[in-house]
Amino acid sequence: MKAEIIAVGSELLTPDRVDTNSLFLTAQLNRLGVEVTRKTVVGDELEQLRNAFGDAMERVELVIASGGLGPTEDDRTRDAVADLLGRKLQRDPAVMETIEARFRQLGRTMSEVNKRQANVPDGAAVLQNDRGTAPGLWLEDRGRIVVLLPGPPHELKAMFSAQVEPRIARLSTGVRLFARELRVAGMGESDVDQRIAPIYMRRQDVQTTILTAPGEIQIHLRKWSADAAGAEEVLQQLQESLVLVLGEAVFTVAGESMEEVVARELAIHRATIASAESCTGGLLAERLTRISGSSAYFLGGVVSYSNSLKSAWVDVTAELIESRGAVSAEVAIALADGIRRRTGATLGVGITGIAGPTGGSPEKPVGLVHVAIADASGSKERAIRYPGERDRIRWQASQTALDLVRRYFLYAAHPKNVVKG
Amino acid sequence: MKAEIIAVGSELLTPDRVDTNSLFLTAQLNRLGVEVTRKTVVGDELEQLRNAFGDAMERVELVIASGGLGPTEDDRTRDAVADLLGRKLQRDPAVMETIEARFRQLGRTMSEVNKRQANVPDGAAVLQNDRGTAPGLWLEDRGRIVVLLPGPPHELKAMFSAQVEPRIARLSTGVRLFARELRVAGMGESDVDQRIAPIYMRRQDVQTTILTAPGEIQIHLRKWSADAAGAEEVLQQLQESLVLVLGEAVFTVAGESMEEVVARELAIHRATIASAESCTGGLLAERLTRISGSSAYFLGGVVSYSNSLKSAWVDVTAELIESRGAVSAEVAIALADGIRRRTGATLGVGITGIAGPTGGSPEKPVGLVHVAIADASGSKERAIRYPGERDRIRWQASQTALDLVRRYFLYAAHPKNVVKG
Repeated sequence: MKAEIIAVGSELLTPDRVDTNSLFLTAQLNRLGVEVTRKTVVGDELEQLRNAFGDAMERVELVIASGGLGPTEDDRTRDAVADLLGRKLQRDPAVMETIEARFRQLGRTMSEVNKRQANVPDGAAVLQNDRGTAPGLWLEDRGRIVVLLPGPPHELKAMFSAQVEPRIARLSTGVRLFARELRVAGMGESDVDQRIAPIYMRRQDVQTTILTAPGEIQIHLRKWSADAAGAEEVLQQLQESLVLVLGEAVFTVAGESMEEVVARELAIHRATIASAESCTGGLLAERLTRISGSSAYFLGGVVSYSNSLKSAWVDVTAELIESRGAVSAEVAIALADGIRRRTGATLGVGITGIAGPTGGSPEKPVGLVHVAIADASGSKERAIRYPGERDRIRWQASQTALDLVRRYFLYAAHPKNVVKG
Repeated sequence: MKAEIIAVGSELLTPDRVDTNSLFLTAQLNRLGVEVTRKTVVGDELEQLRNAFGDAMERVELVIASGGLGPTEDDRTRDAVADLLGRKLQRDPAVMETIEARFRQLGRTMSEVNKRQANVPDGAAVLQNDRGTAPGLWLEDRGRIVVLLPGPPHELKAMFSAQVEPRIARLSTGVRLFARELRVAGMGESDVDQRIAPIYMRRQDVQTTILTAPGEIQIHLRKWSADAAGAEEVLQQLQESLVLVLGEAVFTVAGESMEEVVARELAIHRATIASAESCTGGLLAERLTRISGSSAYFLGGVVSYSNSLKSAWVDVTAELIESRGAVSAEVAIALADGIRRRTGATLGVGITGIAGPTGGSPEKPVGLVHVAIADASGSKERAIRYPGERDRIRWQASQTALDLVRRYFLYAAHPKNVVKG
């Protein structure tokens, strides 16, 4: 089955707002075996709405819309669709009672305008809204289905999952989308593509998409199939072939974030970690603590922007900074080792670099970053020059640091490197 | 003039990618006096593309598309539009030479497929691409204009600004969009709306939109007009009326971020700052250092997750933590004052709280955060309970901390509070 998604709202035609409901809807629809073939964003004018719905209904069997169901004059989705399908709007007493009950519960009185939300086109099924006042609507017309959902994401998501998904599942032919997502760090896009193209080119039955995100490459594998076991096997085989040529650069085959992978490794090895950052300004600590429960492994971190604090907080000597420069391999290692000693963590991580746009020199250009990790037995350091803007350089540096931690644990099972938590 | 935007690419119909080029294009078009009335995302199939362009050209005078101009078999925008308008594609020797030169410059040889990018529909103007190999195209047909731009944002932006904007400006009627953006911190959306609705309701000639973002409310004022001075005056008056009722909760009337506002205040007052965070995990330091040149005012910060590090790094005594709890007003103040003393900064900021989802109790629930600032003469503290998820709680806590710093400087001009940098 094919579907189109219509996002309704003049605010979505301004430079400030992007429709994200369609991403959720697409993910859910794909899992139900429904392919999304077009997305449209349209304003609140009646004529525009009527055209958008009319056109979509000519092309596909299922049209799902979000927004324009509120109580105000601007909310015209209901009217436009009723008009298009030649259905009369009737005030539904049951819906009216639900809306009134909701207002009572919040201790407010229902205003006159809210009654519009109880208007239901003839023959439509009402989709109850547990999180707001605007009910959704399910309409069928000459073999086409139109579903109207409220715009606020938490209302839309709850309504879709509870009331739309089961209805679509019943219509579904059994063909569903199966997907995997590999993520790679420490390699460029063309490098990744060069290695994996010969493999995925041979599997024309799987749709392979390579996306670049800051500090990582994402490889999406997708296969439409009615045969779950068969599809999973094909994806598994392809995944294994890709991991074989990409090696340890693959940090997840389950679409996890780098933070999640590192958190899991730290937990598995009962290791603790501490950070000493300069150019990343706290981003590394912030990422290490994004995960709930991070207090089990993250002891603490310092952001030592000034040289004197590098000395005071993590014992980087003034002589070292003087002789090698604040941005140097030696200082990165000293930061990593210093914070490890100060906090008693299993691992210390140090970052020093030039995030720009100012502060660069011919020898030490903007984007040059030294990243180091240290444990009780030694340290490892990497110098990288990142392209791009300040925020991108900072993000990539934090990603390299997390990736160093991840790779450290790849070898931690080796006797010589066992980490005692 | 009215325009529609078409984003081309099957990857934009997956759950993983959202079209953001249209936000840039909308902002630019609005400034040129062009209103965007519809946005469409469509896949790479020839038939779908032809329909999307054909429909749009029936509705509006200007159709701007991004994507599908690359060298591969999947890139069909050029073919679809040529086909729709009945134009033949001819290989353009000048474009061919430009692409070849680009490959030579990168030290690569041009592959056969890249030659497709030199195909130009009869009568089309070629828009040179300084940042990639895919040239853009400008086509006119029976009073309609179709502009085809490459998908990569940096290529699209450069091409639009250099070659499309001047062409559209020449066609423009003189009616342009004038806009202001106020941002408010420390007030809820309904509070803001209640205060300002009586004012903006009286100005029906200005379109007022209220958006909520984590930790702030954004008020957009928009007015279409051919009279620049008149429009600016109307917006200025409305802006001043809104600031009057919202008071110091307005942190910018120029659409700046909180970080930018705080950075400017610190610079103006030649003040320095240092942070001691717990539940925000480095986010406050990270935000304070997002701005280039932050080393002028940010001395350093600590993320003291463990109680022992709160003592070791910023002299919060074990007794205080024992008697009041790590999440308390007293500890927040001790963090702020401790980091100020340790670093010698003008201002210290302390944050302690429960970001969740675990770790809450009936007395100290998830979302409870204490934020404090301290200078040499005293301190100020705020306790807030934020709703929402972990990342949202952390963001809002950092926003409250930055807002405390901002408000501190509102009174810094007062003799008693002058900050000596």
